[in-house]
Amino acid sequence: MKTRLKHIGQIPGSIIYTGEKMTAESIVQMIDYNEKEYKEKRVEDFRECTKFLRNWVKWIDFIGVDQTNDLEEIGKIFDLHPLTLEDIANIQQRPKIEDMDDYIFLSLKMFSYNNEIRELKEEQISLILWSKYIISFQENEQSDDFHKIKERIIKGKGRIRKMKSDYLLYSIVDAIVDNYFVVLEQIENQVEDLQDELLTNPTSVILNKIQNLKQNLIILRKSIWPVREIIGTMERTDSDLIEDSLQTYLRDLYDHTVQIIDTIETFRDIIAGSLDIYLSSISNRTNEIMKVLTIMSAIFIPLTFLAGVYGMNFKYMPELDQKRTYPMLWIIMVVTAGAMLLYFKKKKWIGK
Amino acid sequence: MKTRLKHIGQIPGSIIYTGEKMTAESIVQMIDYNEKEYKEKRVEDFRECTKFLRNWVKWIDFIGVDQTNDLEEIGKIFDLHPLTLEDIANIQQRPKIEDMDDYIFLSLKMFSYNNEIRELKEEQISLILWSKYIISFQENEQSDDFHKIKERIIKGKGRIRKMKSDYLLYSIVDAIVDNYFVVLEQIENQVEDLQDELLTNPTSVILNKIQNLKQNLIILRKSIWPVREIIGTMERTDSDLIEDSLQTYLRDLYDHTVQIIDTIETFRDIIAGSLDIYLSSISNRTNEIMKVLTIMSAIFIPLTFLAGVYGMNFKYMPELDQKRTYPMLWIIMVVTAGAMLLYFKKKKWIGK
Amino acid sequence: MKTRLKHIGQIPGSIIYTGEKMTAESIVQMIDYNEKEYKEKRVEDFRECTKFLRNWVKWIDFIGVDQTNDLEEIGKIFDLHPLTLEDIANIQQRPKIEDMDDYIFLSLKMFSYNNEIRELKEEQISLILWSKYIISFQENEQSDDFHKIKERIIKGKGRIRKMKSDYLLYSIVDAIVDNYFVVLEQIENQVEDLQDELLTNPTSVILNKIQNLKQNLIILRKSIWPVREIIGTMERTDSDLIEDSLQTYLRDLYDHTVQIIDTIETFRDIIAGSLDIYLSSISNRTNEIMKVLTIMSAIFIPLTFLAGVYGMNFKYMPELDQKRTYPMLWIIMVVTAGAMLLYFKKKKWIGK
Amino acid sequence: MKTRLKHIGQIPGSIIYTGEKMTAESIVQMIDYNEKEYKEKRVEDFRECTKFLRNWVKWIDFIGVDQTNDLEEIGKIFDLHPLTLEDIANIQQRPKIEDMDDYIFLSLKMFSYNNEIRELKEEQISLILWSKYIISFQENEQSDDFHKIKERIIKGKGRIRKMKSDYLLYSIVDAIVDNYFVVLEQIENQVEDLQDELLTNPTSVILNKIQNLKQNLIILRKSIWPVREIIGTMERTDSDLIEDSLQTYLRDLYDHTVQIIDTIETFRDIIAGSLDIYLSSISNRTNEIMKVLTIMSAIFIPLTFLAGVYGMNFKYMPELDQKRTYPMLWIIMVVTAGAMLLYFKKKKWIGK
Amino acid sequence: MKTRLKHIGQIPGSIIYTGEKMTAESIVQMIDYNEKEYKEKRVEDFRECTKFLRNWVKWIDFIGVDQTNDLEEIGKIFDLHPLTLEDIANIQQRPKIEDMDDYIFLSLKMFSYNNEIRELKEEQISLILWSKYIISFQENEQSDDFHKIKERIIKGKGRIRKMKSDYLLYSIVDAIVDNYFVVLEQIENQVEDLQDELLTNPTSVILNKIQNLKQNLIILRKSIWPVREIIGTMERTDSDLIEDSLQTYLRDLYDHTVQIIDTIETFRDIIAGSLDIYLSSISNRTNEIMKVLTIMSAIFIPLTFLAGVYGMNFKYMPELDQKRTYPMLWIIMVVTAGAMLLYFKKKKWIGK
Repeated sequence: MKTRLKHIGQIPGSIIYTGEKMTAESIVQMIDYNEKEYKEKRVEDFRECTKFLRNWVKWIDFIGVDQTNDLEEIGKIFDLHPLTLEDIANIQQRPKIEDMDDYIFLSLKMFSYNNEIRELKEEQISLILWSKYIISFQENEQSDDFHKIKERIIKGKGRIRKMKSDYLLYSIVDAIVDNYFVVLEQIENQVEDLQDELLTNPTSVILNKIQNLKQNLIILRKSIWPVREIIGTMERTDSDLIEDSLQTYLRDLYDHTVQIIDTIETFRDIIAGSLDIYLSSISNRTNEIMKVLTIMSAIFIPLTFLAGVYGMNFKYMPELDQKRTYPMLWIIMVVTAGAMLLYFKKKKWIGK
Repeated sequence: MKTRLKHIGQIPGSIIYTGEKMTAESIVQMIDYNEKEYKEKRVEDFRECTKFLRNWVKWIDFIGVDQTNDLEEIGKIFDLHPLTLEDIANIQQRPKIEDMDDYIFLSLKMFSYNNEIRELKEEQISLILWSKYIISFQENEQSDDFHKIKERIIKGKGRIRKMKSDYLLYSIVDAIVDNYFVVLEQIENQVEDLQDELLTNPTSVILNKIQNLKQNLIILRKSIWPVREIIGTMERTDSDLIEDSLQTYLRDLYDHTVQIIDTIETFRDIIAGSLDIYLSSISNRTNEIMKVLTIMSAIFIPLTFLAGVYGMNFKYMPELDQKRTYPMLWIIMVVTAGAMLLYFKKKKWIGK
Repeated sequence: MKTRLKHIGQIPGSIIYTGEKMTAESIVQMIDYNEKEYKEKRVEDFRECTKFLRNWVKWIDFIGVDQTNDLEEIGKIFDLHPLTLEDIANIQQRPKIEDMDDYIFLSLKMFSYNNEIRELKEEQISLILWSKYIISFQENEQSDDFHKIKERIIKGKGRIRKMKSDYLLYSIVDAIVDNYFVVLEQIENQVEDLQDELLTNPTSVILNKIQNLKQNLIILRKSIWPVREIIGTMERTDSDLIEDSLQTYLRDLYDHTVQIIDTIETFRDIIAGSLDIYLSSISNRTNEIMKVLTIMSAIFIPLTFLAGVYGMNFKYMPELDQKRTYPMLWIIMVVTAGAMLLYFKKKKWIGK
Repeated sequence: MKTRLKHIGQIPGSIIYTGEKMTAESIVQMIDYNEKEYKEKRVEDFRECTKFLRNWVKWIDFIGVDQTNDLEEIGKIFDLHPLTLEDIANIQQRPKIEDMDDYIFLSLKMFSYNNEIRELKEEQISLILWSKYIISFQENEQSDDFHKIKERIIKGKGRIRKMKSDYLLYSIVDAIVDNYFVVLEQIENQVEDLQDELLTNPTSVILNKIQNLKQNLIILRKSIWPVREIIGTMERTDSDLIEDSLQTYLRDLYDHTVQIIDTIETFRDIIAGSLDIYLSSISNRTNEIMKVLTIMSAIFIPLTFLAGVYGMNFKYMPELDQKRTYPMLWIIMVVTAGAMLLYFKKKKWIGK
Repeated sequence: MKTRLKHIGQIPGSIIYTGEKMTAESIVQMIDYNEKEYKEKRVEDFRECTKFLRNWVKWIDFIGVDQTNDLEEIGKIFDLHPLTLEDIANIQQRPKIEDMDDYIFLSLKMFSYNNEIRELKEEQISLILWSKYIISFQENEQSDDFHKIKERIIKGKGRIRKMKSDYLLYSIVDAIVDNYFVVLEQIENQVEDLQDELLTNPTSVILNKIQNLKQNLIILRKSIWPVREIIGTMERTDSDLIEDSLQTYLRDLYDHTVQIIDTIETFRDIIAGSLDIYLSSISNRTNEIMKVLTIMSAIFIPLTFLAGVYGMNFKYMPELDQKRTYPMLWIIMVVTAGAMLLYFKKKKWIGK
């Protein structure tokens, strides 16, 4: 959040990149297609972007939102609202949908999860839909989830080549939602490992794991909850940009986000339960330790007392002079210890 | 969830089975009936399915949704939407209802609970309703809950033979909801056993049982909550496929799901309470152990000290030379121990 | 819930009694009244029930819903929907209201609380309202709450004789809601006893009492929450069976149920707080025990060590030979013990 | 609640006082005013109450709702609905507003808080608004919050003399809401004292204080939550009795109740947090006690063992005969104790 | 809250300052601007405020709401409703928006956070919007957030000079919302420090920090939650004072407040988790301490007993006379101690 502060006190609509990582330069790729053909090229001059072909769909994929000058230029070419540009550059933006009459603006998050260091990385994806073209904005080149969609366009798989730009938008959002399933599955592995560890070897390290999982789930939740609203808004919109035939697909997508949110809530429940189990496993161990101490003490303290008594140096201690008192004392001590052991056995403190 | 990943990156509408178990081949059974007659047969060629009789109701029961090729063929014959087929094959699907104008699609879960290993198994049931026929999709043959409905059709029990396909749909959903009561009753037995165990012999095994019950209830909840919405949607639908006369039945069914959800929430409350009781039973036992240790120590530590004192080897210790000091010391020690015992009795640590 | 299973797999609308207790035979009492006169009789033949008098109100009170044959006969005479009969016989039914156009069907619960064994018993009351008559269904004769209403009719107290059957329905529901206040007051006594016990003598028995109260409150809550909705539905209904003039009374009744629900929630809050207090009272006692142990040990362990030192048998131990060393050691030991006591006093572990 | 039971089984609309305290007789005061004049008098005969002056506002203040005969007489004179009279006499009534067409009936609570015994007392205030007059009902004379309003009328302060009876109603409700701020401020003092005590000297007495504060806040919440709805209903009402010009005032009042509810919730949060802090302070103290015990034991137990060894009476113990062994043993013992101390220092158990 | 009491019993609409700090005199600054020019001056006589220029926007910035006489004068000049003036002076006011037809009144909070003493200070900002001018009310001069907006007006940065008074209002509210991000970022630093401290050195001081953070977050939440509603109300308003073109900006602002509220909730979750971790770290430490005590005791108590036995003075103790018994006893004691150590190693109490 700290880099969000760059924004404070700025004029509304200022294009300020709020992340840390910087690309050397922005990369813009463009793909035009209709049912029969497609053209793909890397854009060098942004003015090329506005060359539209009749009845073709154009997808402009802009990578490197930290290049704010390039963003500004794009903004001028496509006549974007200043606040839209601000939201694209502000990668701390909460996921949102905004119907700007001319175009529909979407801001979403993608995630990558590093299993080793149990870290969740977030990337902001912004999407703008016009009736004939789409611009997508990514932070960097790492994620390759969009390659699959491009491949589908190039190979003509599925119905994507027959449909309009709104179906392309749906395909991209669908890929993003699929990405959430991938991340959730990695989280699920962590949750299962955690529960195994709880049963076999609960150490205090587990607390950090619980806290880490909790916070990752909070991050996911914060970014995925709004996606549900966003897709619901797309489904119910009366904008001409999204056709009625897309509604079945959007409802399906909506169901997927609900399922993801359900799963996140389930994990949160399970993790909360894990903490309870860990806490009671500590209590149980304290119990065990106390039992050992108490058993040892209860057995030997009276015996030591007896030994102490007959270590006294009183002149007149008649027991000391008789031959049978020493073995008798041993018998008394053994019996005492045995009685104690039986008592603890009855109390189920030992012999389980 | 892991098998859900097979879906990731696929074209929307791909028919991919997301479960683990595989049947050798699909089994399709068909039953046609009107008020007076019925015909039952096993389908060998899917094209037989579309032979309809005037004013008869047809029920096609498809078993083995892992046979995705067969699913695809069915899809072509009945002109199903690709997303419907995807949902049928994806057995990780969240329960849903989808009004596709031509037909209404339902996806629900059935459960079987294994008391021995306390495991809950889930089977997905998909149902498609047209005005004159129904197709149901099951994962495998194990559950026999549908046999009872078929028997009712064959024997002409109840009003099922007099009603249309929407009443058949209601009957199937009613059987599924009845199945939830059966599972809940098994869970209830587990909850009662748990509470007995808590009172008589609370060991750490109970924690696993609590966690297991919790998670089973979470699974049930995740699958049954949407059923309430689904039945509510059916009741309020303005689709011609569901007639107004069915509403009273649907409201009754709705009440049953509300009752099931109430019961699940009650069990969750009771189990949460069980954890509290278990935790305080551990604390109580620690308490008991501490008391034993403290009583033993508090009685013998001063006595051992006294014995130690008169075990010293000072040349000048006048007490040692007198004859009455030894018995006097015994008296002092017994009185001290007795005073301690009285003190602990007054504190209610012993003698309860 | 177990007897609920009798229903599983049955045809919807089957009349199956789901309780355990059986009456020998059903008892049906009938009372007809108008503003000036009343007639009361025990019904032998159900066909008598349909003899209506012009502008009189008829109340048929059926006791013994386990007599399902009689229920069925009543059902035929009054043309009741099969699901209504099923709900009357199924005493596990969630409280509900159902507007069947011809009549309004209500299902409610009454409670009796046994203070000795702290057990809550539930009885289901079903009510059916037509424009000129009411049938009420009870499980058995034990509860006498309806006698007071009958007495009011006979003695002409209040406005009941001047009003129609909807006011009679209101009077019965009002009596049922009053019954909740009686039960809640008994629960309140238990809660107060619990809190007194917590302050004076918190033993582990309290945990069972807390758990018992919790579960009784869960049962009450499950049955009374729906009553609020039911009365709200009656108030807002556009059915001709309930006249507008009754609305003021229904709003008043609605307020009473809200008050009851508030009170239940308050009790739940207080009981949850009691558990916290009990848990911390255990912790406090562990603390007390530990203090006693620590004080005893800390005082005597060093002294015992000193005594041990001068009990050694070294040839060369110059202290042993001097006359003043023995009393000096006593002084050292008393000073050490006193210092310890002062230390613990300063720490406020003793002398409070 | 117990006195609520007096109501059980009564005819709806029975006037039964449900409190404990009784006044000797009811006191009725009456004040008439217009913009220029006012008249104040004590009413002896209730029929005086209906002498209205053209364009004057009349306020009748009835004290002593336990005088149910007087209430009944008032009810006849002003044609009050039986349920209104029941609600006025039933001081266990949940706060409510009821639009009876002719008049608007309000039932609210006032509180007084006794700091010494930390007890919250509740008084029920009922208000009835007609277009030209108001009757207010109080339990007894103690509270003097209404004197200020009467003074304002007499002295002509503010706009009260220029306004109608609805403004008078608003003024009275405003005074009641102000009373909540006074009580909350006393609760706030208790909360602050509690937190100071937690930091300086957390004893088990604090648990009772926490429980007491919790319960007082529950009582306040139960009575103030409905007030928000009541004022909201007044603001939105389409009754002619409340003029549009009052809406700004009512919105302001509504904000005040929201603020009060916010504050109550905040206090509940803080108190819940206090319990956590108290519990962990107990755990911390147990920790401290254990440390002292462990340090004492760990230092002296090995030393005592060594002393014990050389207190043995074996004939052949070569160490005993040498001169330097005794001082060497002392050195060993001091080194052992020192090593232990260093170990505990390193573990940060001492010397912090 | 205590100073809120000054209000109790006052006539609604009384202008009473409810804070503690007092300024010497109020400062009023005025800035008029249109697209081309601007005029800035300090106002000496409030009547200057009403000199409006055609098509210019005027912003009057009033500092020192404790100067209630000046407030009253302003109120008369601009014909403010008495309740508006009351709200401006009552700095305990809950944030609100009020559409008074002539003008729109807003009351908001700004915060400053002192990192040293971890204290959150609140300042109330009131804003009144007419079609051509705005008055803002501040408590004192400290905050300089408004200077940036004035600078923007003077330097003509952004679109502010081209827009009407509603855009100025938006700019001021935007600056206030930006202020929340600044405060949240400071809180975030505290939360991170807390979590580091938890992992490295969890002492009881942490409890105070947790409690302090919790309470600061409660304060923020109480003041920022209503801001969301306020901006939502502004967005949906049908008042002529706010033009449609502003809606995009207001939606953006709304998103920011949602993001702030999300962040506050996240922090609350994390802090609640911190308490759990702290509590279990205490339990873990108790565990560690108990282990040390138990290991020491279990090893030396049996040995001390053995030494005690052979320190007894019985005449007949055959072991004492043999030469090899003393070394043999040493061997036995070492073996016993070693066996104990192995046992504890196996139990993983040592050697980790």
